[in-house]
Amino acid sequence: MTDIPDLPTEITKQSDDFGRWYIDVVRRAELADYSPVKGCMVIRPYGYAIWELMQQALDRRFKATGHVNAYFPLFIPESLLMKEREHVEGFAPQVAWVTQGGNEVLEERLVVRPTSETIIGTMYAKWVQSWRDLPILINQWANVVRWEKVTRLFLRTTEFLWQEGHTAHETAEEAQEETLKMLGVYKDFAETELAMPVVDGQKTESEKFAGAERTYSIEGLMRDGRALQAGTSHNLGQNFARVFDIKFQARDKSVQYVYGTSWGVSTRMIGGVIMTHGDDGGLILPPRVAPYQVVIIPIPRGNWKDTILPKAKEIRDQLVARGMRVMLDDRDSQTPGWKYNEWEMRGVPVRMEIGPKDLEKSQVVIARRDTREKSFVPMEGVAAKVEEMLGAIQQALYDRAVAFRTEHTTETDSYDEFKQIMDGRPGFVISPWCGSAKCEADIKTETQATIRNIPFTSKPATGKKCLKCGGAATTHAWFAKSY
Amino acid sequence: MTDIPDLPTEITKQSDDFGRWYIDVVRRAELADYSPVKGCMVIRPYGYAIWELMQQALDRRFKATGHVNAYFPLFIPESLLMKEREHVEGFAPQVAWVTQGGNEVLEERLVVRPTSETIIGTMYAKWVQSWRDLPILINQWANVVRWEKVTRLFLRTTEFLWQEGHTAHETAEEAQEETLKMLGVYKDFAETELAMPVVDGQKTESEKFAGAERTYSIEGLMRDGRALQAGTSHNLGQNFARVFDIKFQARDKSVQYVYGTSWGVSTRMIGGVIMTHGDDGGLILPPRVAPYQVVIIPIPRGNWKDTILPKAKEIRDQLVARGMRVMLDDRDSQTPGWKYNEWEMRGVPVRMEIGPKDLEKSQVVIARRDTREKSFVPMEGVAAKVEEMLGAIQQALYDRAVAFRTEHTTETDSYDEFKQIMDGRPGFVISPWCGSAKCEADIKTETQATIRNIPFTSKPATGKKCLKCGGAATTHAWFAKSY
Repeated sequence: MTDIPDLPTEITKQSDDFGRWYIDVVRRAELADYSPVKGCMVIRPYGYAIWELMQQALDRRFKATGHVNAYFPLFIPESLLMKEREHVEGFAPQVAWVTQGGNEVLEERLVVRPTSETIIGTMYAKWVQSWRDLPILINQWANVVRWEKVTRLFLRTTEFLWQEGHTAHETAEEAQEETLKMLGVYKDFAETELAMPVVDGQKTESEKFAGAERTYSIEGLMRDGRALQAGTSHNLGQNFARVFDIKFQARDKSVQYVYGTSWGVSTRMIGGVIMTHGDDGGLILPPRVAPYQVVIIPIPRGNWKDTILPKAKEIRDQLVARGMRVMLDDRDSQTPGWKYNEWEMRGVPVRMEIGPKDLEKSQVVIARRDTREKSFVPMEGVAAKVEEMLGAIQQALYDRAVAFRTEHTTETDSYDEFKQIMDGRPGFVISPWCGSAKCEADIKTETQATIRNIPFTSKPATGKKCLKCGGAATTHAWFAKSY
Repeated sequence: MTDIPDLPTEITKQSDDFGRWYIDVVRRAELADYSPVKGCMVIRPYGYAIWELMQQALDRRFKATGHVNAYFPLFIPESLLMKEREHVEGFAPQVAWVTQGGNEVLEERLVVRPTSETIIGTMYAKWVQSWRDLPILINQWANVVRWEKVTRLFLRTTEFLWQEGHTAHETAEEAQEETLKMLGVYKDFAETELAMPVVDGQKTESEKFAGAERTYSIEGLMRDGRALQAGTSHNLGQNFARVFDIKFQARDKSVQYVYGTSWGVSTRMIGGVIMTHGDDGGLILPPRVAPYQVVIIPIPRGNWKDTILPKAKEIRDQLVARGMRVMLDDRDSQTPGWKYNEWEMRGVPVRMEIGPKDLEKSQVVIARRDTREKSFVPMEGVAAKVEEMLGAIQQALYDRAVAFRTEHTTETDSYDEFKQIMDGRPGFVISPWCGSAKCEADIKTETQATIRNIPFTSKPATGKKCLKCGGAATTHAWFAKSY
């Protein structure tokens, strides 16, 4: 059992210590907390509400692209996990083992799923007979466990929540189309809902999923200049189908193995939102995933409960009627100043204040969390105004993040310059690379930077020389230090 | 690893073998399947869609009563589980033990949560300081594991999905109010959404939750005359608060322990729906939790794809626009007759057929799954008609289930008669009971019947004698054989 440190009372400045700032924000804003189980987190209601909004936005997209949800067992028999050679090597060292159930020692040990290709593959082998049974387009919302040595709330925890899509197709082309379609869904989700611009591209051989033919990822850039892998989509080819015997009678009556894909995003995304948008004041939430988009704070002067509060409730109801998520903070126990700080720290996009003067003038005070701009807005038509402002904030956060990424993306063909850049808070560095795993590994050892991916829009490297070995470059890779 | 038997091709008649009928329906309707892990099930997309509808209906009710969702770790350190004496005795014999993580043997073993009172209590102790922090009204959607010897799909599985509410309050009165409020939410959910009438009441001492002061349940009656405990709500008093040190400064400045409640329903509810409504034809789903409320089957005659199909799509769109969930089954590979059987077996409440004659007459054929009545309905205004019919079916299923329960509820003061009734497919038997655990246990041994609960509406037992010992009865108990 692990002790849980007390909650921080202050938030470390982002510029002083980004890592400390991050943990302070997560805990002080009550997004998540440590637990008595080493490496496992508690997702508190405010953090879980963000996850619920993310789930809804993703689930809507999955269903719109023809997927359905299902649920497979938490436990995987050891012999199943061990079937696919690369997969075993990738996951066996980091799984939790169940060895006893009730009072009996198990004949065969079970692993707590680190991912579900093996157990799902076993079921697909039962369910698929003919090409008519294909494609299978299934997603699962679940918890998974990976025994991590070093953990950080949301970003890397022993247990985390995620979704994992697992599909089976008749042809290689269909599987590749699915792989890229879902990566596109993730990119659209990250950029539209989280206001987090991402680079989409293909992972290198050494960074691909254990058992996949090709892995693709979306990569965001955090405000400390480190990249965050925010979602992955894998083309599994026929690897798992061969091992788990997922066969079907094809249209030409021949017997074929299916082509598989799998793809996932996790609660790590919440960490991405925090580190993409937050500042010294704490969290800044994009309106589309903010549990409260607007906080209304009535100023407690005179008989405010008979004058200001009813008006505040009226406005709250107007906003709610338009579909906005609103918190009316009418607690007696706290001052307005305390409330301003609290909700600012917790990242609520818009704050509305209503005092006696405002009531007199039929206006409210509106403060934007992102720019901290304050303005007076007439009560008449305030709901439409706030709704418009939420849209503007969502866009402004995205634009700001794109600008930050542009400022923190450098191109260089020189390894000396590359190393200099990687010394600070670098961002992405685009450099020519020969495609060899050795150069990739040497660069990582010497600079901590890894190839995040080869973006789909990467410029050709014709005539260029590899950053590391000077051999002919095959591509431009995007390097960064990462989480 | 466990072998998975092939899917049944036929469904056993309900009257021939209810248990076999149940498993056949679950597997043939593709609600759930066995898995390679003993006692663990796979919830297939059609079954999971029912669960999603249940989740939405419950979650809406939880939020409307002021609750928020959160997520706590899957693993519980052994020392935490062992803290509450009764709780340990209740759960330790049936948990899965994690003894190794990655390559290291754990210093302290972890259990996979069978329920989360202990881990959540530990966190509440950190979070609660003052009466201002109360109440805490948290719910968790999660998987839990209980090592069961005998399992049955949905009804009793080693892993299952559920929600568990865990609340903390200032006073005993508030905790009791919450306990009963959530039982009421469950009853309303079961009766309104699942069309499953339930008896709400208090469990006896011997049947209460391990660690609770009082346990309440809702009990449904299945078509084989057995009762199903469909949801429980526990008043934990200060038991867990004392053990986990959940204290707060009260309004009078004294330091007090909180009063707790917990309450849960699980995927078992899906089994309840199947066994409350199903018949020899298979599943009958109440419209409110039916993944497809209407299946439209175009009759493939002549150039039907240019004539009938466009009309079918038009009607589908009209239904969808009104919020109905519709499947248009336009597969070439199956005959209409096959489709009728298939969707009947899978319990779709309304079937619509459109053939060339119907097109001519601007009508459709509508068949109700519950009564198997067929009628002709003009295309003009068909969407409103179907919507109305879905409401009527929901009500009819509920009424039928109430009638079944009434027919299968007997009162007797005689133990001989009691034993006779319990010999067949009994239903509920209401009998006077002295309140002693010994009589309760003896009755169970001799008849397999248990006290399901003491309903809130139970008649007084003044002057009555205990069914078993003949001593003064304190109450009328509802007995049944149960799942």
